[in-house]
Amino acid sequence: MIPFIQKHRSIRKYSEKNIPKDILEEILLAAVRASNTGNMQVYSIIVTRDKTRKQKLWESHFKQDMVLQAPVVLTFCADINRFSKWCEASLAKPAYDNFLWFYNATIDAVLASANAAIEAEAYHLGICYLGTTTYMADTIIDILKLPRGVVPVTSIVLGYPDEEPTLTDRLPLEAVVHFEEYQDLSGAEIKQLYNTKEELQEMKDFTKENNKESLAQVFTDVRYKEADNLFFSDKFMNILRQQGFIK
Amino acid sequence: MIPFIQKHRSIRKYSEKNIPKDILEEILLAAVRASNTGNMQVYSIIVTRDKTRKQKLWESHFKQDMVLQAPVVLTFCADINRFSKWCEASLAKPAYDNFLWFYNATIDAVLASANAAIEAEAYHLGICYLGTTTYMADTIIDILKLPRGVVPVTSIVLGYPDEEPTLTDRLPLEAVVHFEEYQDLSGAEIKQLYNTKEELQEMKDFTKENNKESLAQVFTDVRYKEADNLFFSDKFMNILRQQGFIK
Repeated sequence: MIPFIQKHRSIRKYSEKNIPKDILEEILLAAVRASNTGNMQVYSIIVTRDKTRKQKLWESHFKQDMVLQAPVVLTFCADINRFSKWCEASLAKPAYDNFLWFYNATIDAVLASANAAIEAEAYHLGICYLGTTTYMADTIIDILKLPRGVVPVTSIVLGYPDEEPTLTDRLPLEAVVHFEEYQDLSGAEIKQLYNTKEELQEMKDFTKENNKESLAQVFTDVRYKEADNLFFSDKFMNILRQQGFIK
Repeated sequence: MIPFIQKHRSIRKYSEKNIPKDILEEILLAAVRASNTGNMQVYSIIVTRDKTRKQKLWESHFKQDMVLQAPVVLTFCADINRFSKWCEASLAKPAYDNFLWFYNATIDAVLASANAAIEAEAYHLGICYLGTTTYMADTIIDILKLPRGVVPVTSIVLGYPDEEPTLTDRLPLEAVVHFEEYQDLSGAEIKQLYNTKEELQEMKDFTKENNKESLAQVFTDVRYKEADNLFFSDKFMNILRQQGFIK
């Protein structure tokens, strides 16, 4: 058992302490050891340490302060640009500018990020994923100067923790894991699996603070609303078009 | 440093030894501890151990023998079905049947798979990712009885290794990692970064066996050809439509 996997907490407050260069290099070396499609490594990792650039990334990432605080931001990108250019320089005709390869590259980029995150935690660093990466992929493309064929997939901030958050809850394993066949439960049965979550005092407070009748309504009406979902969905698809992955 | 991350090898030959139930449970518990969007856990994990069903999965996964040999196959799925049903049972109106949420769920499913893979290796198990999951998502949906709102993203086989493969090569770190800004190198510069790879005896043999002039041509003309890429790209997009993630 790897204790820091089962005890992972996302860290959102960081000390000013920098990450030593050799530790950052070990983290990057761990990232590139991840499984990847055909060992083609169709991803890139952009390291941001410069304060001015971090400030710009902070604006893109919905001004979450951890982006400013943490000394390092790693942006993991799907990247068929490098591989395609290698093909062209090798008298080969690449055909990776399509959705399948964007998706393969996405999986590879995320696996690299997971290795980096876990290796970082082994060095007692804290990490937090930034889901805002896809929401704001257009401005991130500008800030990091990503060419056609490259799309930011996910980001992590890295640094020494300045908080000790408690472990967040998870659904019981039987809600998420299915043996042999997917068990398509009824709404009432699913509601039962969410009972422990709904009964947590912090979830009750969270529902009340947001003036909602149910915890689910906090998600649908406040945190991840239909209008936003549709807006960012279209926006991200347009970015895939612009970067050459969808015709 | 986590030695088994930096020394990860994909295992393609497995002994008949079964995975003890408590170890499989630890692996699944590690999977669900992964970072995920809004702690919504919009993914599911399907465990396949039954021989008849593994035989069917084997057919879908291009008849790669490791699928038959390994005692366990884990299929990680993007899943908005459970969350949406919970919302509906909670007087909330879900709106997660769109591309953005398919993509969020993809990232979460892949992060869960990475935790499972690394935890498995900590127990001296071998793993291998199956990139064929997206290629054959339609038949996998049938075999695992995945409802609308659920799409298989990636799979790993798990078991005790019956081989000790050597570490595969990786591009030099400077080919993959960019500091502050993406360095969009020329074809000639990229070709240089691939030099060590191209000069490996196994890559030279691989190019010769395939009757190609360059290693890149083995990828473009043999392994991942334009016609296949476009075919599977369209097929996967149609599956996303069928499962309700693209209008």
